[in-house]
Amino acid sequence: MKKLLAWWEGPCASSKILRFVDRNLRGIGQVMFQDNPLSGLLFFVAIGWGSYAAGVPQVAIGGLVAVLAATLMAQWLRVDEAGLNAGLYGFNAYLVGLALATFMVSSLQLWVYVVLGGAVSVVVMLAISNVLKTWGVSALTAPFVLVALLLLLATNVFSGLDGGALPPVGEIVPIDPSAADPLRVGDFVQGIFTSITQVFLKGHGPAALLLVAGLAVNSLAAAVFALVGALVGVVTAHCLGAESDLVTAGLLGFNPVLTAIALGAVFYRPGPRVVAYMLLATVLSVIVQGTMMAALTPFGIPTLTAAFVLVTWLFLLPGLKLE
Amino acid sequence: MKKLLAWWEGPCASSKILRFVDRNLRGIGQVMFQDNPLSGLLFFVAIGWGSYAAGVPQVAIGGLVAVLAATLMAQWLRVDEAGLNAGLYGFNAYLVGLALATFMVSSLQLWVYVVLGGAVSVVVMLAISNVLKTWGVSALTAPFVLVALLLLLATNVFSGLDGGALPPVGEIVPIDPSAADPLRVGDFVQGIFTSITQVFLKGHGPAALLLVAGLAVNSLAAAVFALVGALVGVVTAHCLGAESDLVTAGLLGFNPVLTAIALGAVFYRPGPRVVAYMLLATVLSVIVQGTMMAALTPFGIPTLTAAFVLVTWLFLLPGLKLE
Amino acid sequence: MKKLLAWWEGPCASSKILRFVDRNLRGIGQVMFQDNPLSGLLFFVAIGWGSYAAGVPQVAIGGLVAVLAATLMAQWLRVDEAGLNAGLYGFNAYLVGLALATFMVSSLQLWVYVVLGGAVSVVVMLAISNVLKTWGVSALTAPFVLVALLLLLATNVFSGLDGGALPPVGEIVPIDPSAADPLRVGDFVQGIFTSITQVFLKGHGPAALLLVAGLAVNSLAAAVFALVGALVGVVTAHCLGAESDLVTAGLLGFNPVLTAIALGAVFYRPGPRVVAYMLLATVLSVIVQGTMMAALTPFGIPTLTAAFVLVTWLFLLPGLKLE
Repeated sequence: MKKLLAWWEGPCASSKILRFVDRNLRGIGQVMFQDNPLSGLLFFVAIGWGSYAAGVPQVAIGGLVAVLAATLMAQWLRVDEAGLNAGLYGFNAYLVGLALATFMVSSLQLWVYVVLGGAVSVVVMLAISNVLKTWGVSALTAPFVLVALLLLLATNVFSGLDGGALPPVGEIVPIDPSAADPLRVGDFVQGIFTSITQVFLKGHGPAALLLVAGLAVNSLAAAVFALVGALVGVVTAHCLGAESDLVTAGLLGFNPVLTAIALGAVFYRPGPRVVAYMLLATVLSVIVQGTMMAALTPFGIPTLTAAFVLVTWLFLLPGLKLE
Repeated sequence: MKKLLAWWEGPCASSKILRFVDRNLRGIGQVMFQDNPLSGLLFFVAIGWGSYAAGVPQVAIGGLVAVLAATLMAQWLRVDEAGLNAGLYGFNAYLVGLALATFMVSSLQLWVYVVLGGAVSVVVMLAISNVLKTWGVSALTAPFVLVALLLLLATNVFSGLDGGALPPVGEIVPIDPSAADPLRVGDFVQGIFTSITQVFLKGHGPAALLLVAGLAVNSLAAAVFALVGALVGVVTAHCLGAESDLVTAGLLGFNPVLTAIALGAVFYRPGPRVVAYMLLATVLSVIVQGTMMAALTPFGIPTLTAAFVLVTWLFLLPGLKLE
Repeated sequence: MKKLLAWWEGPCASSKILRFVDRNLRGIGQVMFQDNPLSGLLFFVAIGWGSYAAGVPQVAIGGLVAVLAATLMAQWLRVDEAGLNAGLYGFNAYLVGLALATFMVSSLQLWVYVVLGGAVSVVVMLAISNVLKTWGVSALTAPFVLVALLLLLATNVFSGLDGGALPPVGEIVPIDPSAADPLRVGDFVQGIFTSITQVFLKGHGPAALLLVAGLAVNSLAAAVFALVGALVGVVTAHCLGAESDLVTAGLLGFNPVLTAIALGAVFYRPGPRVVAYMLLATVLSVIVQGTMMAALTPFGIPTLTAAFVLVTWLFLLPGLKLE
């Protein structure tokens, strides 16, 4: 893979178009921390497949449009070239595009909104990164969470923006224990796979294989920790008595997947103390995902990756040496 | 104007009373970023006019009492003299006073509250400024937003504090599209003017002329960008399908006005790239104002300038060179 | 007391078990800023008494289990030894344990949760402290507030976690003035005492004497300011027209108690300007406690010490020289 990437750098260096394509693909790869255009391509295909299978191809297109807008915006703003070439200004936009196209009804305004969201995500990425570099911590997907929540919540006030696919506004109601019926083995397996695809807001089990492949081509450790995160997510959520439907749909597992990759394979090198620390954070991510779901109930907006961002920041900010 | 200000510095330097008056006037001027006592005086007259015309003279008095309390507090705390002389410890207090007197029912406790709010706004200004100077960013009106929200929300718990003019607590309900009927030309013009006066929480079109004059005497660019912000605010809000009454009352336009002045004329010097960047932020301010309105619905408190503060911070924090 | 502490350091230095005990006792003492094992012991006895008298001994045990878990976690994470020996990694955990055992129904999962909460509070303490040292400000009980709110709110989503003793979810409703009937003298006195015990989430007047004794053995000033804070809290809350039951139960007074100790005796040395500044912050803590109660009503979670943390941060961040 290293040789392939080194060879690919040649054409990219000599062609502006290829460089632009490469930046966007790496942007998609960075959703799960992979600075690799092949990872990005596999992720892109997986999400295209998942969107098509679910009858919402506009979701995959929304992601694409937003990441293109973000890369153009980043170039116009003359951001640092190293970050731009590594896809650091694309992954939040890709997720913003997926989220807007998932939760809003398709219309001309949606596409204007997707372009706006992609462009603004670059500014927010720069802002949050600048703040967090004071403590040597990464912005993670915080720009995605902030931009998407701002844009989705506003749909309540503007009749031209139809947030008709948003979760309903309501009062927080404690779970009915009967909704936490025992899961069957098949549900467990499905939950693990959908936990991985829900990182990209899709609940499509088979596409998870492409996502894991996209991780593995760049980092075997990342692929392993993604699966560990999904397993911990599903088991923890079930043992705590979560609603079975949420577990099966992967909605309590995608934050743990990201936390496990981030702490296990990206910001620390794997080792016994790191794994123990990562496991604690991963379990906490499941709980905090529950917290976010309750907290956002009165607002009728999805939690996105807020739990992952909060927990991973809390576990990175101490700057502990664990290796 | 420069000569006039230089001459005025003479009497101020030799008279403690005149210096005190000057500090308070500049404090009012800084609501729209103008370090100029004449701007402050024009703003003060405009708000007095608007309050009197609306039958609520106590609003203008509330602002005055709060700014006086803040200047005394800042002197007692021995804050930096340059900031004090530039009115930096007054503008948040002036807005706090206007907000408390607008949303609360008049009573003895209200006036104690206004003095308390004015004094506390100085501490909060120092606190937020100290945090933000790490990244070279200004506190803007964040102290006003924080202090006013804290004091207004507490009225629910204390029967001596009557927040009877606060918006009702409710569930977030998506806008009924029929409320976004086409605006007539007259409504557009009114919306532009009230967008400017709503910076001071008043919806009084004619007073906007005094406010624009107050800007122009110190900075022609600021006056132009205020009008640009109001125009962008009204047009964007209407095109997105906002409720016509909100647009006409200026309630979706005052945040864009502040964002346009801040990014167009205060923190950057005007130029083509700056204007494009400012326009993106200004449009986003309209949307985020909708977000804030939805987010605060369950709490029954006004959004104040939270949208301006958030968006302008996000666009200043990257520290981009655009000129 | 100084001699006693110096003598006690001898056995602690030579016995790992005694050092561990000492760390936990100081951790409990640090709830009210006292780096003294005898203070911690008196606080521990007071809370044990209050819990036993209220028929909920599991609350005191919850606190103990959490602080033990936190000290073990801090040792495993190899945190700085000076902070560890001063109890800085224990006080948030002790409060987390008290809160979880107070608001949740006893079960096996509760005890797992208490251990988890204690351990996580150490990570969050390190994270928040690392952020705040940029401005030379202490984390106070923010880690407690954050961890407890995250863990308590999640109980709505997991049927294995029973938050049955949490306040009900509801709409914010302004207080009915008739609930603010005049207090009798006896109620005032009781409110002052329970304001002190509510720092530890207990409303048990007599136990306040042990808490004040625990303060006095280490710092007479802290004991005096705790009483001043309680007095200011009760008087301010009553004068503003708070519900009498809240005042009598100490629920509007515990935040002012902590603010008064922090600003009056811990972060500043007492003096006339310091006392005036502390009084302003203490009065504001009462109001902001009302704000927090209103703000959290839609979420059905307690406010804990959020008001103290916010107000004290705002008054420490300016870094004023007041002495």
